[in-house]
Amino acid sequence: MPRFALKIEYDGAPFSGWQRQTGVPSVQGAVEAALARLESDVPSIAAAGRTDAGVHALAQVAHCDLKRDWDPFRLREALNFHLRPAPVAIVQVVRVAQDFHARFSALERQYLFRLVSRRAPVTHMRGLVWQVPHTLELAPMQKAARHLLGRHDFTTFRASICQAASPVKTLDELCIEKIPFPGGSEFRFHVRARSFLHNQVRSFVGTLERVGAGAWPPQAVKAALEARDRAACGPVCPPQGLYLARVEYPQDPFA
Amino acid sequence: MPRFALKIEYDGAPFSGWQRQTGVPSVQGAVEAALARLESDVPSIAAAGRTDAGVHALAQVAHCDLKRDWDPFRLREALNFHLRPAPVAIVQVVRVAQDFHARFSALERQYLFRLVSRRAPVTHMRGLVWQVPHTLELAPMQKAARHLLGRHDFTTFRASICQAASPVKTLDELCIEKIPFPGGSEFRFHVRARSFLHNQVRSFVGTLERVGAGAWPPQAVKAALEARDRAACGPVCPPQGLYLARVEYPQDPFA
Repeated sequence: MPRFALKIEYDGAPFSGWQRQTGVPSVQGAVEAALARLESDVPSIAAAGRTDAGVHALAQVAHCDLKRDWDPFRLREALNFHLRPAPVAIVQVVRVAQDFHARFSALERQYLFRLVSRRAPVTHMRGLVWQVPHTLELAPMQKAARHLLGRHDFTTFRASICQAASPVKTLDELCIEKIPFPGGSEFRFHVRARSFLHNQVRSFVGTLERVGAGAWPPQAVKAALEARDRAACGPVCPPQGLYLARVEYPQDPFA
Repeated sequence: MPRFALKIEYDGAPFSGWQRQTGVPSVQGAVEAALARLESDVPSIAAAGRTDAGVHALAQVAHCDLKRDWDPFRLREALNFHLRPAPVAIVQVVRVAQDFHARFSALERQYLFRLVSRRAPVTHMRGLVWQVPHTLELAPMQKAARHLLGRHDFTTFRASICQAASPVKTLDELCIEKIPFPGGSEFRFHVRARSFLHNQVRSFVGTLERVGAGAWPPQAVKAALEARDRAACGPVCPPQGLYLARVEYPQDPFA
């Protein structure tokens, strides 16, 4: 069966997450329903990152096996037609080798988190950012973030329901930029690792926000990490600012 | 009565436009309803730009006269509290002199139009941009836009219901930038004039899009302008890409 890789963009708001679950809308379910309109008995699809309820994707990657050797352009058009009006778009489709696996071939995941600091409620960006009404200091957040880089036991920043075999992960990047936002500021967190624990990025951002607000000194994040205790984590922030931004493979199938 | 200037941001989607009309939701109606929660008999408010149904604002300006000499910060907080959950935010409130008039003191209005060219439907930006599925060429649009600059009779680009006294206006800026958009391109139109005719920006963008798509040569825009005939206009584009971006006054009340 020919294998295709799909680059998928979605607004996570109406979904219970990527993963198909009975009785609730999921992104996987939406894409599989669209595939089922094209061929019968399409096998279940696999994705690089199983995003949580409300989490967005700019470039989720999944692969599917089909019977027909579809023209990639026509396959993309047909899927987008059947996905309407769900806020899910197949941005690119490519034919890949049988040994390409969207999840297991991935070398790295990149996430973006958008945090807006402003008193007046956001309007256009509602559901697309996490908003806090107070000001945040960039430098202490950056200082605290440096403690998290590298290989660590991230038990502190791991949801209790996390199914990963080990809490030891290597964080390759956690950089924060401050950009103008009308009437306030936006902080963009760029986070990069081979793989993540459940809720890891939201645990990082929720904890770093406490540092930016002045409630935690940067050093407290180091202590929290070293505690290897979920109770030492700051509050887990809400999902609507989080985007799966990019998945790296040994060779970019979409290049 | 103390006079206040309000800088207002809104998502135009749920509104029939700025102006209060009986039986339909309007931004003016929403702000006046919030003011009515604070004081009785608040006079009707005036705004710099009477945006149409579905048109957004990044920084609409209105003024209101109140009985109490409100602290501007507390007035803003109270209004935003009473505006929830409407996608309308008072970003800034300042006390202004009695001779400040949001509409008549304005020297210039700036609009932004966001046009996205990409085949796959947009997800996060739905309702915030106008999307076309075909590619667009920047240079012909820029060439055509230059014909519109300066003082002209803009009858061609004026809605039949326009109430302006004269169709002669001076267009100070119409610049178009092309920026990356995942899987496509975004074109941002920056348009600036002392005042505009009804539907003028959407008539410009709808016509220039035809040029970018290759359906009209740039020279045809010059001919359309010189025709001074509504029938010579290209299609008026939809409202969801249009934002009232800035209003200029002799002295910026919000500085």
